[in-house]
Amino acid sequence: MVSTILTAVPALGILALIFMAIRYNWVGKQDPGNPRMVRIGQNIADGAMAFLRAEYRVLAIFVVVVAALLMFTADAATSSYMIGISFILGAVCSALAGFIGMRVATKANVRTTNAARESLGKALGVAFAGGSVMGLGVVGLGLLGLGSLFLLFQGMFVPDGTVAGSAEAQFAIVRVITVLTGFSFGASSIALFARVGGGIYTKAADVGADLVGKVEAGIPEDHPLNPATIADNVGDNVGDVAGMGADLFESYVGSIIGTMVIGAAFIVLPEFAQSEIGGLNAVLLPLVVAGIGIVASIIGTFFVRVGEGGDPQKALNTGELIAAAIMLVLTYFAVTLLLPAEWTVTTLTAEAPTTFTSLGVFIAIILGLVAGLGIGYITEYYTGTGTKPVQGIVDQSLTGSATNIIAGLAVGMRSTAYPIIVLSTAIIGAYYFAGLYGIAIAAVGMLSNTGIQLAVDAYGPISDNAGGIAEMAGLEPAVRERTDKLDAVGNTTAAIGKGFAIGSAALTALALFAAFMQTAGITSIDIANPYVMAGLFLGAMLPFLFSAFSMEAVGRAANDMIQEVRRQFREIPELKAALEVMRRNDTADQAVWTDVDKEVFFAADGKADYQRCVEISTQASIREMVMPGLIAVVTPVVIGFAGGAEMLGGLLAGVTSSGVMMAIFQSNAGGAWDNAKKMFEEGASVQGTIYHKGSDPHKAAVVGDTVGDPFKDTSGPSLNILLKLMSVVALVIAPLL
Amino acid sequence: MVSTILTAVPALGILALIFMAIRYNWVGKQDPGNPRMVRIGQNIADGAMAFLRAEYRVLAIFVVVVAALLMFTADAATSSYMIGISFILGAVCSALAGFIGMRVATKANVRTTNAARESLGKALGVAFAGGSVMGLGVVGLGLLGLGSLFLLFQGMFVPDGTVAGSAEAQFAIVRVITVLTGFSFGASSIALFARVGGGIYTKAADVGADLVGKVEAGIPEDHPLNPATIADNVGDNVGDVAGMGADLFESYVGSIIGTMVIGAAFIVLPEFAQSEIGGLNAVLLPLVVAGIGIVASIIGTFFVRVGEGGDPQKALNTGELIAAAIMLVLTYFAVTLLLPAEWTVTTLTAEAPTTFTSLGVFIAIILGLVAGLGIGYITEYYTGTGTKPVQGIVDQSLTGSATNIIAGLAVGMRSTAYPIIVLSTAIIGAYYFAGLYGIAIAAVGMLSNTGIQLAVDAYGPISDNAGGIAEMAGLEPAVRERTDKLDAVGNTTAAIGKGFAIGSAALTALALFAAFMQTAGITSIDIANPYVMAGLFLGAMLPFLFSAFSMEAVGRAANDMIQEVRRQFREIPELKAALEVMRRNDTADQAVWTDVDKEVFFAADGKADYQRCVEISTQASIREMVMPGLIAVVTPVVIGFAGGAEMLGGLLAGVTSSGVMMAIFQSNAGGAWDNAKKMFEEGASVQGTIYHKGSDPHKAAVVGDTVGDPFKDTSGPSLNILLKLMSVVALVIAPLL
Repeated sequence: MVSTILTAVPALGILALIFMAIRYNWVGKQDPGNPRMVRIGQNIADGAMAFLRAEYRVLAIFVVVVAALLMFTADAATSSYMIGISFILGAVCSALAGFIGMRVATKANVRTTNAARESLGKALGVAFAGGSVMGLGVVGLGLLGLGSLFLLFQGMFVPDGTVAGSAEAQFAIVRVITVLTGFSFGASSIALFARVGGGIYTKAADVGADLVGKVEAGIPEDHPLNPATIADNVGDNVGDVAGMGADLFESYVGSIIGTMVIGAAFIVLPEFAQSEIGGLNAVLLPLVVAGIGIVASIIGTFFVRVGEGGDPQKALNTGELIAAAIMLVLTYFAVTLLLPAEWTVTTLTAEAPTTFTSLGVFIAIILGLVAGLGIGYITEYYTGTGTKPVQGIVDQSLTGSATNIIAGLAVGMRSTAYPIIVLSTAIIGAYYFAGLYGIAIAAVGMLSNTGIQLAVDAYGPISDNAGGIAEMAGLEPAVRERTDKLDAVGNTTAAIGKGFAIGSAALTALALFAAFMQTAGITSIDIANPYVMAGLFLGAMLPFLFSAFSMEAVGRAANDMIQEVRRQFREIPELKAALEVMRRNDTADQAVWTDVDKEVFFAADGKADYQRCVEISTQASIREMVMPGLIAVVTPVVIGFAGGAEMLGGLLAGVTSSGVMMAIFQSNAGGAWDNAKKMFEEGASVQGTIYHKGSDPHKAAVVGDTVGDPFKDTSGPSLNILLKLMSVVALVIAPLL
Repeated sequence: MVSTILTAVPALGILALIFMAIRYNWVGKQDPGNPRMVRIGQNIADGAMAFLRAEYRVLAIFVVVVAALLMFTADAATSSYMIGISFILGAVCSALAGFIGMRVATKANVRTTNAARESLGKALGVAFAGGSVMGLGVVGLGLLGLGSLFLLFQGMFVPDGTVAGSAEAQFAIVRVITVLTGFSFGASSIALFARVGGGIYTKAADVGADLVGKVEAGIPEDHPLNPATIADNVGDNVGDVAGMGADLFESYVGSIIGTMVIGAAFIVLPEFAQSEIGGLNAVLLPLVVAGIGIVASIIGTFFVRVGEGGDPQKALNTGELIAAAIMLVLTYFAVTLLLPAEWTVTTLTAEAPTTFTSLGVFIAIILGLVAGLGIGYITEYYTGTGTKPVQGIVDQSLTGSATNIIAGLAVGMRSTAYPIIVLSTAIIGAYYFAGLYGIAIAAVGMLSNTGIQLAVDAYGPISDNAGGIAEMAGLEPAVRERTDKLDAVGNTTAAIGKGFAIGSAALTALALFAAFMQTAGITSIDIANPYVMAGLFLGAMLPFLFSAFSMEAVGRAANDMIQEVRRQFREIPELKAALEVMRRNDTADQAVWTDVDKEVFFAADGKADYQRCVEISTQASIREMVMPGLIAVVTPVVIGFAGGAEMLGGLLAGVTSSGVMMAIFQSNAGGAWDNAKKMFEEGASVQGTIYHKGSDPHKAAVVGDTVGDPFKDTSGPSLNILLKLMSVVALVIAPLL
C-alpha cells in the first residue's frame, strides 16, 4: 500500500500538469484580436519575460551559492549533500511555476480582451483558464517535486530490509524528510524574491506612471502616450501572478513538509508501526490530502461558467465550493483509511498520555479549511466596496486626506482582531483534537485546494490587464464594461486571496516552527528565559524593519521611474508634441480637436520607449530586493548559532506573531483605501450628498490609495514570505544547532 | 538597620514633597502679567480643572468598584482585603500627582510668558520650576506611598518574633508585597485613563481647532477668536503633563514593586538570611535606589540655569547629567552595602547553580540607565529637526502628501530597530550579570531619576502654553521669540522623553512579568504550547486594536468639536462679524484695516464660548476611554481564568513585544512628521531649493503632521499603559490562578 501511495502522489502531480498543459494550449489558441491589441499584448509579454530573465539570472547565483553551502555543511549522519539538490529543485519548480504562470497570464490578458468583444461568459472563460494554468501548475509542480523526491530519497536513505515501524526506519525517514526540507527552502527563496522584487516592481511602475502621467502630464490611466504604462501592466503580472503564485507554492510545500516532519514522530508508535502502511501513515497523509485537493480543484474548475448578464462572482464561488465539498468527502475516507482509529501519545501540556483519533485529525483539517475561508471573508468585510469600514473611510475623506488616512490606518489595525481570533481558535482547536500534528495538518487542509484558489486569484490580474489593453487599444466602451465587471470581481477575490495567503502563511510558519523544534530536539521554548525574550523582541521588530525597507525601496524605484518618464516627455519630440496638444485642448474629448491636433496626437502612438521603463523597474526591483532578502536569510542563522536554538525559537515566535499583524494591517488598510477611492469613482454618498470623481473628497481618497499601494502590494505581502522563510531556514539549520 | 531604611524611604518621599511645595509656592508668587494674560491663564486653568473634575468623577466609581472586587476576592492566606486599600491609595496618589502637576503647569504657563517679557533665563526658571513640581510630586508621592504602606503591612502581616531570613519571614514578606501590588494597580488604572483620555482630549481639541479655525475660517493658531483655542491649550496640559506624569508614576511604582517581588525569593538564601538586614536586602534595594534618585534629582534641578542668549538645552542636560552622576555614585555604595558580595542561586537557563555578585547588580542598574538614555537619543535621531530621516520626509514632500506619508510611516517602522537592539542587549546583559532580579532592577535604574526627567518633560508643554498665551494676549514679538526658543528645546526633550517612557514601560512590563511568573508559581511559559502561542497571537493583536480604538475615538471627538466651533461661528453674532472682517480684508495685517473693521474685530474678543469647547472635549474623552480601558483590564482576567496562567503569560509576552514596536513606530512617525513640517516653516532645503511655509511641499507636510498627531499623542503613548497595566493585572490575579 505504501508503494501505491508513493507512486500515486507524483502521478496526481502529473495529472495536474496535464490539465494545465491542455488549458495552456487552449488559451494559446484563442484569437488575440486586432494587430494593435497583439502589439500591446506582445509588449507586456516581452516586459514580463525581461523581468523574469533578469530576476532569474540574479537568483541563479543565489541558488547555486546557497546550494553549495547546504551541500558542504550538511551533516552526513542526519542529512545528506542531497539537500542541496532538493534546494535547487525546489527553487527550479517554484521558478518554473512562476514562468508558466506569467507566460499564460500575458497570453490570456489580450485574449480575454478580445473575448470580451463577444461576451462576458467567453471573457470569463479565457481569464479563468489562464488563472487555472497558474493554479494547477503550482500544485502540480509542488506535489510532483515533493512526491518524486520522497520516492528517490527513500530509495537512497532507507536501507533494504529495514523493518517498517522500527526505530531504524524512523531514523531513516527523518533523514529523508530532513533532506526534503531543502525543497521547501528552495521554494521559499524564490518566493522571497518574487514577492519582494515583484512588489517593488509593480508599485514603482504604478506610482511612476500615475505621478508623472496622470498627475503631471494629465493623461488618462493606461494611455499609450505614457512610457510607464507597459511597465505598469507588466507589474500586475509580476506582482499579482508570479508573486502570489510563489507565495502559495511556498505555503503549499512548507505546510506539507512541516506535517511530514511531525508525522515522523508517530512511526514507532505501536498503533502505526503495526498498521498496513507500516508507520508512515502520518507522514504520507499530507501528500495524500494534497493529491485529493488536486483532483477536487480540477473538477471544480469545470463549474466556473457564466452567461451574459450573469454574475462572475457566483461562478467562481460555485467552483470553489464544489472543490471544497469534494475535498472534504474524499479526505474523510483518506484519513480514516490511512490513520489508525486511535493512538496514544504524550503531549506537551497534558500530564498523562493523550489519545488522539483519526476523526480528530479530520476535524483539524476542517478547522484549517474553515479558518482559511473565514479569514478571507473577514478581509472582504474590511476592504470591500460599500462595507461599513470602507464607508467610514469615505466619510472621513470629506475633511481631507489626513482624516482619510487616519481612518484607513485605523481600519487596517482594527481588522487584525477577528482574523487573529479565528486563527487562535483554529490553533487551539486543532491542537485539542490532534496535537501538534493537528496544527500542521490544519495548514495542509487550508492549502489543499490551492489549485482552484490560486486560479481564482490569478484570474484577477488577467482581467485587470484585459481592461488596460482595451483602453490602450481604444476599443468600444462595451468591451471595457465587460472587463470592468470581471475586474470588479477580481478585486474581491484578490482581497480574499490576500487574507487567505496571510492565514496560510501563519499556519505554515507554525507547522514549520513545530517541525523546527522537533528537529532541533528542543522540548520547550521558555519565554521566561531572557534569551528567548530578547529573541522575541528582535523577531517582533523584523517585520517593521522589513516593511520600512520595502516601502522605501518603492519610493526610490518610483523616483527612478519618474525621472525616466520625465526624460522621455522632454526628449522624444512626438511625445512632447502630443502632450502639448492635450494641454492646449484642455479636454480629452478628441471629437472637438482640430485635424492637425489629431494628426500630431496619433503620430505619437507607440513612440514612447516602453522597454526602457521596463528595464528601470526591473533593475530597481532587483537591486532593492537584496537587503531584505539577506535580513530574512541571515538573521535566523546568526541568532541560531550565536544565541542557540531556544533564542531562535523566540525569534521565530516574534516574527510570526508581529508579522501576521503587520501583514493583515497593511494589506487591509491598503485594500480599504483602494476601494474607498473606487467608491468615489462610482459616486459615493456621504450624509446624503453624492461625491464623484474629481471632487475634493475623491482627491483626498486618491492620496489614501497611493499610500495604500505599497502597503497592500509590497510590504504587506512580503511579510508572508518573511515569516515562512525564516521558519524554513531555522528548520534547515536545526540539525546543526 | 532594616528599620532605619524603612523609615528613611518614606522620609525621602516627604523630602521630595517639601521641595515640591517650595517650588510650587515660588511659582505661585511670580507675576502672572497683565489682566488679559491673567484672564487667558485663568481660562486654561479652569478648563484643566474642569477636565480633571469630570475625569476623577468617573474614575472614582471605577476605583471603588475595582477596590471592592479586590477586597472580596483577595485570598486571605496569601493576600488580604487590604489590597483594596493599596489600590485606592495608588489611585489617589497618582491622581493627586496629576492634580498638582496640572495645577502648577497652568500657573507656570502664564508666569513663564510674563517672565519671558524680561529675559530668557527667568522664563526658563519659571517653566522648569513648574516642571520640577510635577517631577518631584510623582517621585515623592510614589515613594511615600510605597514606603509607608510597606511599613504598615509589615507591621500587620509579619508576626512578632518571626526569625529574619526564615521561610516564615519569606512567606510573610511575599504577602506584604502581594498586598502592595494593589498600589501599582491603582496607579496603572489612573494612568490608563489619564493617557488615553488625555490623549483623546488633546487631539480632539487640536484637530478641531485646526480644521475649522485655521483651515476653514483662516484665523491663525492660538487666536482668541477660535472657540477651541482654550481647549487646545488645556489639552497640552491634560495630555503632556497629567498623561506623561501618570505614565511615569506607573512605571516608577511598577518597576519597584516588580523588583521587590523577585527580590523576595532571595530572603531565605544563606547569604541574605544571615546578613545584617536579615534577608530583606534585595527587597529593600529598589526602594533605596529610588530614594537616592530623589536626592540626585533635587540636587540636579539646582543646576538648570541659563543666561540671556544661552542654550536652554545645555542647561537641562547639565541638570540631568549631574543627577545621573550623583545617582550612580551613591547607588554603588548602596548596592555594595546592602547586598552580600556574592550569592548562589539556580537560574532558569543554566544547569548548575549560578553565582551573582553585588557588582553584577550595580552593572544591571547602569545598563538600565544607559538603555533609557540610549533609547531617548535614538528617538531624537529619528524625529529631530534636520536629521537624515526627517530630511528624507522633507524630500518626499515634494511629490505630495502621499509620498510624505509613506516616508513617515517607513521612518517610524525603521526606527524600531535600534531601540529594540538596545533593549534586548540590556535584557540579556542584566540577566547575565544578575539574573531575573537584574532585569527588574535595571528598570528601577532607568527610572530612578524620574524626578528630574519628568521635570524636563513637563517643562515642554508649559513653554508651549506660554507661547500660546503670548500669541493670544498679543504681546510683542520678542516675547514669542523667547518662548519659541524654550518651546523648540521642549520638542527635543519631548521626543527623548517619549522614547524614555516607552523604554521604561517595556522594562517595567518585563519586571512585572517576571514577578507575575514567580507569584503564579509557573517556572516556564512554553511557546511550543499552543495555548501560549494563541495567547501570544492574541496579545500581539491587542496593541493594534487598542491603537485603532484610540485613533477612531480622536476622529469622533474631533468631529464633535468641529460641529461646535462651526455652530459658534454661525450663531454668535460678534464672532460672525469678526470673521467677516477677516475674510473681507484678506490680510492679517491689521494696520491696513479700516477703523470700523478694527472695532468690529476687537468687539469679538472673548465672545467665543471657550467653556463649551472644553466641555465637548472633556465629555468625548471620557466617553471614549471606557472601551479601551475595559479591554486592557478584562482581557488578562478572562484569559487567565479561562486559559490558565501560561496562556496569560503568552498574552503578556505578545502585548509587550508588539506593543513596544507599535509605540515606537507611532510615536516616532508622529514626531518625525511634526518636525518635517516645522522644517518647512523655517525654510527647508530640497535639492538646492528652499521651500517655505505655504509652499506645496509644506502643505503636503501639514497632512503628514495631522496624521501623526493621534499617532504620537494618543495611540502611541497609550500603549505604554496598556502593556504595564495588563502585566500588573496579571500580577494582581496571579495568586488566584
